[in-house]
Amino acid sequence: MTDLDFARARTPEAKRARQETILAAATRLATAASVREVTASAIADEVGMHKSAMLRYFETREDIFLQLAADAWGEWSSAVRVELEDLAAGGRHDWDQAAAHEVASVVAHSLVARPLFCDLLAQTPLNLERNVSQEKVKAFKLRALAAVAEIGSALCVVTPLQLDQARSVVATATAMAGAMWQMAAPGTNLRAFYESESELAHAIVDVEPSLTDLLATLMIGYVARSI
Amino acid sequence: MTDLDFARARTPEAKRARQETILAAATRLATAASVREVTASAIADEVGMHKSAMLRYFETREDIFLQLAADAWGEWSSAVRVELEDLAAGGRHDWDQAAAHEVASVVAHSLVARPLFCDLLAQTPLNLERNVSQEKVKAFKLRALAAVAEIGSALCVVTPLQLDQARSVVATATAMAGAMWQMAAPGTNLRAFYESESELAHAIVDVEPSLTDLLATLMIGYVARSI
Repeated sequence: MTDLDFARARTPEAKRARQETILAAATRLATAASVREVTASAIADEVGMHKSAMLRYFETREDIFLQLAADAWGEWSSAVRVELEDLAAGGRHDWDQAAAHEVASVVAHSLVARPLFCDLLAQTPLNLERNVSQEKVKAFKLRALAAVAEIGSALCVVTPLQLDQARSVVATATAMAGAMWQMAAPGTNLRAFYESESELAHAIVDVEPSLTDLLATLMIGYVARSI
Repeated sequence: MTDLDFARARTPEAKRARQETILAAATRLATAASVREVTASAIADEVGMHKSAMLRYFETREDIFLQLAADAWGEWSSAVRVELEDLAAGGRHDWDQAAAHEVASVVAHSLVARPLFCDLLAQTPLNLERNVSQEKVKAFKLRALAAVAEIGSALCVVTPLQLDQARSVVATATAMAGAMWQMAAPGTNLRAFYESESELAHAIVDVEPSLTDLLATLMIGYVARSI
């Protein structure tokens, strides 16, 4: 029994503070390793609580990571919209392939700069939405959908895309960032192995340039279809 | 102890036959449920072997599914290339948005028609390449890369795409099919829940039309960039 086990949070503020402590511990562990390697027991150890005490604050391990994913969607949405507004304020008004590349580059860089978010993006549909209550799935999904809509609207300011096209670009960007990160995260054993075998050269994905190229091409395609 | 445990395969042919029996059992179970829900013990039970006996033929559960994934890449490559050759033989020579949609539709439909392959596509980089020897990862990856190259070449016959662009279309198609299938597989509890809540309408992805639209737009974009 530790101090944290004894001091069960009795007020909403205390409960919230305890949840934040647990989320911060899960963030540290998942950043150092990867989401798939972090168990509920490891998070409890990192916080200094018994696992059973920790699970008074979250339903399951998946609930903890789904909350981190919701927070990450919100943080990413705020940050990338600031960057897109900066582009708009920069005064470029003509749409061409260079402009498409510039917008794609902002979106791709903002994702690659958030490796834990990329890891969570792939883990969410496979694992994290599966072992939690429907109430938690709904809260998460509404936050993610709101972010897609917010960033879609911001893209419409700096591109000639229609809103549904812009949302599709955001959904593709996040799904591909998740998939590419799993295949190619720098520093993983799998990436090191791919790099060590010349026959596997095509297995190496450089996420940021590949994602930038893909998103630029997709936006150019949508605009070409509308002409 | 069952007959299969006693009758340890002693010739290469007998070993191969036993492996095929195990792969067929894993296919049945993963098709009925999903890859993530199928354990090595469940496969052993389905075959009628002890788990320890089964693991003489495969390194791990992940090794079994990685072999299924390699086979599925090969089968998909053969099948989709036949369909693309049929398109080419159909004699369409002009490239326009309708042609892009037709080619995209062939690729998207061929993926959606293979739900176990879609499930494996998402599971592979997250889980299946992680708990097997590097030798097995390499054999799998070479098969998948060969399929991407084969289908890329077939796409170059029916589109004006360059080979690297065509390979990018194939890589995007498979990554997005994997991601969309996890989010939206018809018949899953998660999909039924999304459908039951009007606020989550945007969470429902109709995989085949969405994937067709995405791939058509990507091809149109690549061709527009080359002009």
